[in-house]
Amino acid sequence: MKLSFNKSALLNGINIVLKAVPSKTTMSILECILIDASIDEIKLTANDMELGIETVVEGSILERGRIAIEAKLFSEIVRKLPDSEVRIETDADNNVSITCEKADFKIAGKDADEFSYLPMIDRDDHISISQFTLKEMIRQTIFSIAAGDVNKLMTGELLEVTENELKITSLDGHRISIRKVLLKDSYANQKVVVPGKTLTEISKILSGDTDKEVLLYFGPNHILFEFDRTIVLSRLIEGEYFRVQQMLSGDYETKMQVNKKDFLDSIERAVLLVRENDKKPIILNLQDQTLEMNLTSMMGAMKEEILVNKQGKDIMIGFNPKFLIDALRVIDDETVNIYMVNSKAPCFIRDDEESYIYLVLPVNFNRA
Amino acid sequence: MKLSFNKSALLNGINIVLKAVPSKTTMSILECILIDASIDEIKLTANDMELGIETVVEGSILERGRIAIEAKLFSEIVRKLPDSEVRIETDADNNVSITCEKADFKIAGKDADEFSYLPMIDRDDHISISQFTLKEMIRQTIFSIAAGDVNKLMTGELLEVTENELKITSLDGHRISIRKVLLKDSYANQKVVVPGKTLTEISKILSGDTDKEVLLYFGPNHILFEFDRTIVLSRLIEGEYFRVQQMLSGDYETKMQVNKKDFLDSIERAVLLVRENDKKPIILNLQDQTLEMNLTSMMGAMKEEILVNKQGKDIMIGFNPKFLIDALRVIDDETVNIYMVNSKAPCFIRDDEESYIYLVLPVNFNRA
Repeated sequence: MKLSFNKSALLNGINIVLKAVPSKTTMSILECILIDASIDEIKLTANDMELGIETVVEGSILERGRIAIEAKLFSEIVRKLPDSEVRIETDADNNVSITCEKADFKIAGKDADEFSYLPMIDRDDHISISQFTLKEMIRQTIFSIAAGDVNKLMTGELLEVTENELKITSLDGHRISIRKVLLKDSYANQKVVVPGKTLTEISKILSGDTDKEVLLYFGPNHILFEFDRTIVLSRLIEGEYFRVQQMLSGDYETKMQVNKKDFLDSIERAVLLVRENDKKPIILNLQDQTLEMNLTSMMGAMKEEILVNKQGKDIMIGFNPKFLIDALRVIDDETVNIYMVNSKAPCFIRDDEESYIYLVLPVNFNRA
Repeated sequence: MKLSFNKSALLNGINIVLKAVPSKTTMSILECILIDASIDEIKLTANDMELGIETVVEGSILERGRIAIEAKLFSEIVRKLPDSEVRIETDADNNVSITCEKADFKIAGKDADEFSYLPMIDRDDHISISQFTLKEMIRQTIFSIAAGDVNKLMTGELLEVTENELKITSLDGHRISIRKVLLKDSYANQKVVVPGKTLTEISKILSGDTDKEVLLYFGPNHILFEFDRTIVLSRLIEGEYFRVQQMLSGDYETKMQVNKKDFLDSIERAVLLVRENDKKPIILNLQDQTLEMNLTSMMGAMKEEILVNKQGKDIMIGFNPKFLIDALRVIDDETVNIYMVNSKAPCFIRDDEESYIYLVLPVNFNRA
């Protein structure tokens, strides 16, 4: 194999597929990037068996071939090369030579036959959405998936297509995050649970450009994202997702309208008194048009008041401050509406169109 | 005590003295910042017994007093307060109240009497130098002090004043770094060894401004730096420093003049093949006007050639690539001169005026 690239094009391609290279694995072939120039274009592929990424890189094929190269070393070498033409050559023993100007690296490659190609899936059902919107929706929901594997379904996000609406839901047992967006067209209904890791990695690759589209294809066990000259293929999480709709009630006793930045800043100050693993609630005491916030820990006490617009009953309610912070940080509105029933029932942060709904469960606290 | 500050002035002062707060200590009073407003100005002090920093902060004294406050929590709280007036009040039980707009923190302070003030030293012998120059000289030499405490003297840097010249020297047994600068005036001769930690921390506080001066005062056991409204006091390292002068020979067999960036880039590429703790040398093979560099490791082999200007004999010599990189990174000249004798003798990277001298010992290698 003999290939020639512009350095920045090659590096860009490597950085894209690198997202699917596992950091720890016992199978050394999974740590490799496959360069496949066996036909007319040059494709880079990485595949950790859950998530696979393939991208086409501009370059010249002087002699066709395929090779697998250890991803980390390959990316470091290319990154440090001069901004110039990079040549990659292999011999029959899978020795790889990477040259650029007067620099010449020789490293050992691996037989491309060892590499697992991405499975093929039918490209029938799909939807189209802007890269910007998908990237935003992931950012605005991904924080409330559960870590560990208490329940596998909680480690992913539910993607639902209903005619011309895409809804993304995540939950971890203490809170629920929902974002909805209208699509330009209507599509067949879909309901799949995508691993959180896939969504995290794809949101790093998406350009965040409102003019560029990404296509999502739905297979029985996989989802495929296609954009620019890249495809990302991921396994789905099997099982039936939680029935979220029945937890979302429209009834409330108290509606509080508050300046988002003031509210967020206050809570962020209060958590300075909370060391990790120390679960101290922030207590909201809403009386008339004044919200008093209190947090007391081993380290000290904090009190702050802000003016709000309240309808309905006064209320005193405690929350894990981190959960409020996570939700408020990803809401772009200047003022937010918070709906509450009583000190035992979840609160809802949502806009009138319900383009976002954040449900947070309250916590018990001592009424001192 | 009752004080009032502008938030940014207070935060700036905290950030300065924070450099002398130890990250780990068994004496909790050392983790505190002392606020002393017992006379007419407000001073913040931190002191880890080796290094102490004191700075004056603008503010109003509504009621005189002193208090010690846990540094980390204090700095985090002030950082998160609105950009507005900050009030600090204490009661007779050392309870501290920090208020700003509607935010109100209550934390426990410590008795100021527990705090160790900085020792007083005579301010007789001193020199004056620009903050920029001192900051640069530290950056350009600090990397070649020894870590651990193999030899305590190696963990510091030698500061020598000889009439109107300041010279800073560091060494770790494998290399020596020397920087010299001319001062505006002549001073009494001085020769002190300053702990590396002191110099690292002070270079973070110095403004890097060429117009601003820093004064250095020399005591028998301490050095004191005074600048802006801040003083930094540090213990000296006792003992007689190494006789460096006798290791610096002017004789050479080979002089190589090379473009610094090309040379540095090549070595930085070569070390991609070296994993930590794997001590692979880079081998320089200088023949006529061509420098060939080779590095071979478990991971592969790298070869690169660059054109140089050579006077004297051809030579083949091996180095720890990290040592060359460290020195080349802090030299601002476009081309550097490297002087060598043979493959067993140290090389010198120096300019004609010897404003810098970097000595690096070679390493053995297999002539394959």
